[in-house]
Amino acid sequence: MTPIDLRSDTVTQPDEAMRRAMAAAEVGDDVLDHDPTMAALEERVAGLLGVEAALWVPSGSMGNLIALFLHLRRGDRFLAPLGAHVLDAELGTAAWLAGGMPHALASLTPETVVAAGGGESPYYGLRTTLLCLENTHNAAGGTVTSVDEHAALVAAARSIGLAVHLDGARLWNASVALGVPLTSLTAGADTVQVCLSKGLGAPVGSVVAGSASFVVEARRVRKMLGGGVRQGGVLAAAGLVALDRIDHLEADHSNANGLASGLRALGWEVDEPATNIVLASVPDLEKTLLSLRDVGVFASPMSGKVRFVTHGDVDSSDIAEVLRRLREDI
Amino acid sequence: MTPIDLRSDTVTQPDEAMRRAMAAAEVGDDVLDHDPTMAALEERVAGLLGVEAALWVPSGSMGNLIALFLHLRRGDRFLAPLGAHVLDAELGTAAWLAGGMPHALASLTPETVVAAGGGESPYYGLRTTLLCLENTHNAAGGTVTSVDEHAALVAAARSIGLAVHLDGARLWNASVALGVPLTSLTAGADTVQVCLSKGLGAPVGSVVAGSASFVVEARRVRKMLGGGVRQGGVLAAAGLVALDRIDHLEADHSNANGLASGLRALGWEVDEPATNIVLASVPDLEKTLLSLRDVGVFASPMSGKVRFVTHGDVDSSDIAEVLRRLREDI
Amino acid sequence: MTPIDLRSDTVTQPDEAMRRAMAAAEVGDDVLDHDPTMAALEERVAGLLGVEAALWVPSGSMGNLIALFLHLRRGDRFLAPLGAHVLDAELGTAAWLAGGMPHALASLTPETVVAAGGGESPYYGLRTTLLCLENTHNAAGGTVTSVDEHAALVAAARSIGLAVHLDGARLWNASVALGVPLTSLTAGADTVQVCLSKGLGAPVGSVVAGSASFVVEARRVRKMLGGGVRQGGVLAAAGLVALDRIDHLEADHSNANGLASGLRALGWEVDEPATNIVLASVPDLEKTLLSLRDVGVFASPMSGKVRFVTHGDVDSSDIAEVLRRLREDI
Amino acid sequence: MTPIDLRSDTVTQPDEAMRRAMAAAEVGDDVLDHDPTMAALEERVAGLLGVEAALWVPSGSMGNLIALFLHLRRGDRFLAPLGAHVLDAELGTAAWLAGGMPHALASLTPETVVAAGGGESPYYGLRTTLLCLENTHNAAGGTVTSVDEHAALVAAARSIGLAVHLDGARLWNASVALGVPLTSLTAGADTVQVCLSKGLGAPVGSVVAGSASFVVEARRVRKMLGGGVRQGGVLAAAGLVALDRIDHLEADHSNANGLASGLRALGWEVDEPATNIVLASVPDLEKTLLSLRDVGVFASPMSGKVRFVTHGDVDSSDIAEVLRRLREDI
Repeated sequence: MTPIDLRSDTVTQPDEAMRRAMAAAEVGDDVLDHDPTMAALEERVAGLLGVEAALWVPSGSMGNLIALFLHLRRGDRFLAPLGAHVLDAELGTAAWLAGGMPHALASLTPETVVAAGGGESPYYGLRTTLLCLENTHNAAGGTVTSVDEHAALVAAARSIGLAVHLDGARLWNASVALGVPLTSLTAGADTVQVCLSKGLGAPVGSVVAGSASFVVEARRVRKMLGGGVRQGGVLAAAGLVALDRIDHLEADHSNANGLASGLRALGWEVDEPATNIVLASVPDLEKTLLSLRDVGVFASPMSGKVRFVTHGDVDSSDIAEVLRRLREDI
Repeated sequence: MTPIDLRSDTVTQPDEAMRRAMAAAEVGDDVLDHDPTMAALEERVAGLLGVEAALWVPSGSMGNLIALFLHLRRGDRFLAPLGAHVLDAELGTAAWLAGGMPHALASLTPETVVAAGGGESPYYGLRTTLLCLENTHNAAGGTVTSVDEHAALVAAARSIGLAVHLDGARLWNASVALGVPLTSLTAGADTVQVCLSKGLGAPVGSVVAGSASFVVEARRVRKMLGGGVRQGGVLAAAGLVALDRIDHLEADHSNANGLASGLRALGWEVDEPATNIVLASVPDLEKTLLSLRDVGVFASPMSGKVRFVTHGDVDSSDIAEVLRRLREDI
Repeated sequence: MTPIDLRSDTVTQPDEAMRRAMAAAEVGDDVLDHDPTMAALEERVAGLLGVEAALWVPSGSMGNLIALFLHLRRGDRFLAPLGAHVLDAELGTAAWLAGGMPHALASLTPETVVAAGGGESPYYGLRTTLLCLENTHNAAGGTVTSVDEHAALVAAARSIGLAVHLDGARLWNASVALGVPLTSLTAGADTVQVCLSKGLGAPVGSVVAGSASFVVEARRVRKMLGGGVRQGGVLAAAGLVALDRIDHLEADHSNANGLASGLRALGWEVDEPATNIVLASVPDLEKTLLSLRDVGVFASPMSGKVRFVTHGDVDSSDIAEVLRRLREDI
Repeated sequence: MTPIDLRSDTVTQPDEAMRRAMAAAEVGDDVLDHDPTMAALEERVAGLLGVEAALWVPSGSMGNLIALFLHLRRGDRFLAPLGAHVLDAELGTAAWLAGGMPHALASLTPETVVAAGGGESPYYGLRTTLLCLENTHNAAGGTVTSVDEHAALVAAARSIGLAVHLDGARLWNASVALGVPLTSLTAGADTVQVCLSKGLGAPVGSVVAGSASFVVEARRVRKMLGGGVRQGGVLAAAGLVALDRIDHLEADHSNANGLASGLRALGWEVDEPATNIVLASVPDLEKTLLSLRDVGVFASPMSGKVRFVTHGDVDSSDIAEVLRRLREDI
């Protein structure tokens, strides 16, 4: 029984076009000079996001970390939605390494942003200086922040003097789901991070982007963290191929919808998927994950639920097969 | 019009007995040796708290910081009640300096502690290793955690392998309010911090306490932070006097009750005070604080409400005077 | 046999005038407001040092730490003389906490400062941004940097864009030894730290000083580190008394000279003392320290030598007694 | 005029075999699972180094950083030779991020290691806990630590309780130059870092190695720093090819010798090269680097000298051409 891996879209394998591009890439020493293929990738991503400049990084975690490090003075408080990747999935680096004091918002609205407060607390001196957004929001089930919601959150942050960082690891999915350009979802953000290695299927790599002066400093911090690499153009080449695939994500969303419908038909309690993530509520999470594994369906735990993620290496027939196995075996 | 200062019990002035004790204190170089009066204070506090050893520190913030620093590896997550002093009132040091990733619990119960999880997240590797308690809980209005609640929270933490730090800046108030010994409120905690400069009225100083080996390391960290002092016995002498006053806190509690009743009689919406803190909900916090100041009543903002704190430098006639002024002027 | 304690001038006991001042001090909550006696002390020290503003801190280590924290971005390199207190005696906080990359200069001259380089390394990106001076220089034996040397070092630092912090824990001694005002020894430094608890004999306390905007930020960092205290005026009162004693340090210097001459007469190899510190080279440091202790003479190890420090609690007859004991017993 | 790039061996381009290996690599999600090609690379490197386990990292800087982070508690002092990469070329991360207090040894011998001291300073409490070695030593001109010297340094460190980390970014060169196995140069070290992207010519990647338990923790820290990657096997595949090339480094050494001889014949003052690095002393470093660039010879500044580095993309005819250009034009 061939396993069908729906743990994450990070399991996608580079395809032949990416492999050819890697093999043929023009490369250079990106620490001493600027690797030409990396430079091309960075320019293209900056253009897509509507910002001045961009920087390749080995992972989305490093991209977020660099942005937070540069936004925050040691001790500054930042706001993020409960369950945000920067809060739960980056091993505490937003705090001890970037220097921020996290404040999670159970509900993220312009009102809660303003209430959580900017400026300096008159009593204690804690300064809140940053709002971190995440679109799509992984832990919430790949939910999408619309253009209007995004604009309202940014406006709320601005009204109390906060900078805005957007963790857009899956911003491509939001753009495709909404049918809007990426720029409408980055508008007003100071910095943005996007991943090439999730739905887009490239191996190794994300991009952090913002103003030209931000990227100059980001390059230094990347070197600090050990993310300055030599001849990284081999990876950027795959990233450039991946950027041609953004609209392929529509298939992932369609497959997620198919999976959700199928699961409901089998009696599962499933959140309505907004993009390529399906969250199912089950009585016993650990047990369900093991039962799924027994029938060759790999899923992961997320926010106390079962998370299935569709991606480029599974198609509608795989989804049908998943449903067939569950119908028979669980 | 003489101002009546109810912003905090930290405004209390050392009395004559404390001043005499300071002037007469036997002192030594506590960095090179061990200041004898500090040693006496530390031994007495350790005894009161039922722990092996204790260490004088210049402030409660430093006491909490030392404890968190020693409990947490960089990146470890810790749990604390929403609004905890370590989260909101220590300028983010729990995160960037102690190295912890804060996780605030909107409701702190044995169940939420266990659900927030200990051990290592199977998916991301974040480790939760510490529960921070605060008794009384300042931001909640000086509320008291009972002996049973404390024991259940500690047991919950233990069941998932968490260490426990107790921010007991006002633990004296909890002990007096409940009529139980301090030891019943520290039972099972690895480390405890108590303040000499709040309700007890001593100038400058808190104590952090725990195992003997904890205190050895805490002494090093205190020196790191710049809290190792020479001839600090002058302060410890005042602290020793303060420790004779614990039962005087009953008057503060009684005054808080009187103030709450009086305010209610005037139509204010007031939380039931548990100790020496009175929280009042008002339509416009900033405006109310200014109006109070106009009639010489000083209060402070806390959790979106007006906070009045009773202490040793106000007596029942002062409370009556506060109520008289509010009746007439606001 | 009464011990004569020459380990450090930090062992000095507060005298009666200081104790009376402490007992009588006007005090306030220096976190909420500004303790009036602290404010008076800070203003007086700022005036003595010729800077805009000053801030009381519990220790010289905290004063240095606050200054370095505010001067350095994480990863900036700073220069300091080999053996500087910020390098060897503050438990690494200049590095891990203030965020600096220390670079020790075996010889501190304008030339070595310039050669060690300012600006950003073209190859690696390391930025050198700060020069730390120490006057008198403890580990070098209480040596004095003259007005001209100081000015030349500051000019060298400025010429390559470095800020300057002066660890002046014993700057009073330098001023007295040279017979020049303190301001001539702080000229051009951005920040200065001076101790009240060494030669001046006050218990607990140092002052860090600089521009008014520096002190605003320093106050926040002091709170972060746990050095914000309530009613600290009791200590500041002793500090104010201590400031009347600066010229008493001349006696300490004279006693150091007497001790050095006497030791030489006994065949010891002794560095020429510049202030109140006498360094003696001995074949076996540990053994000598123990032998001294056997005859009730307490000294400390420093830079591989025996360090004797004269201070206000030893007078010329004590020095004579030390020499008598050594003549007979070692 | 074709430039000849001798700035560093990091400029080497991946060759056809590496590019084919990348294109064909079997890969997986190394965060969720263990990328199979990465696993193969790690096992092979661990074997070569004679240690239990190894971990791929994006750069040598990250490898060193992870090792220091895990060896050092915040505030621990570590020893390293003056000019070490961890001191000068990693943007201060050894200090602010790993938490160490650097102590540079102008001369690195067993005696200076012991004198600089292990254990805890009796006076101040600073703990020295780690010795960092670097073989070959870049800033010293690619000098080699012999097997006996290495063993003596390790023994000295052990005798005072220090752990040992070996920055072996160019350890391959030392092994080839001495004609000894890598294991004889790692003996006794707790952790080792080696680079695949310098003389070995692979794009992107280094390996940090040590005990199995070290690597478990190192994997977590790698994720913290943003070095956990997906499908990194494409890079590991190139690394595996590179490991077949270790003996090719002999040609680089021979070319360095040829360059040094030729430069001397032209009247340059040149250090005797030990491996693939040639340091030349010149009156005006900046001017010489520019003059070299004018004739298409790229070199870099290092320790106040001109550094030429030979590598796989320059052969003996390139060296002859460099010498020809210098003969004629400078």
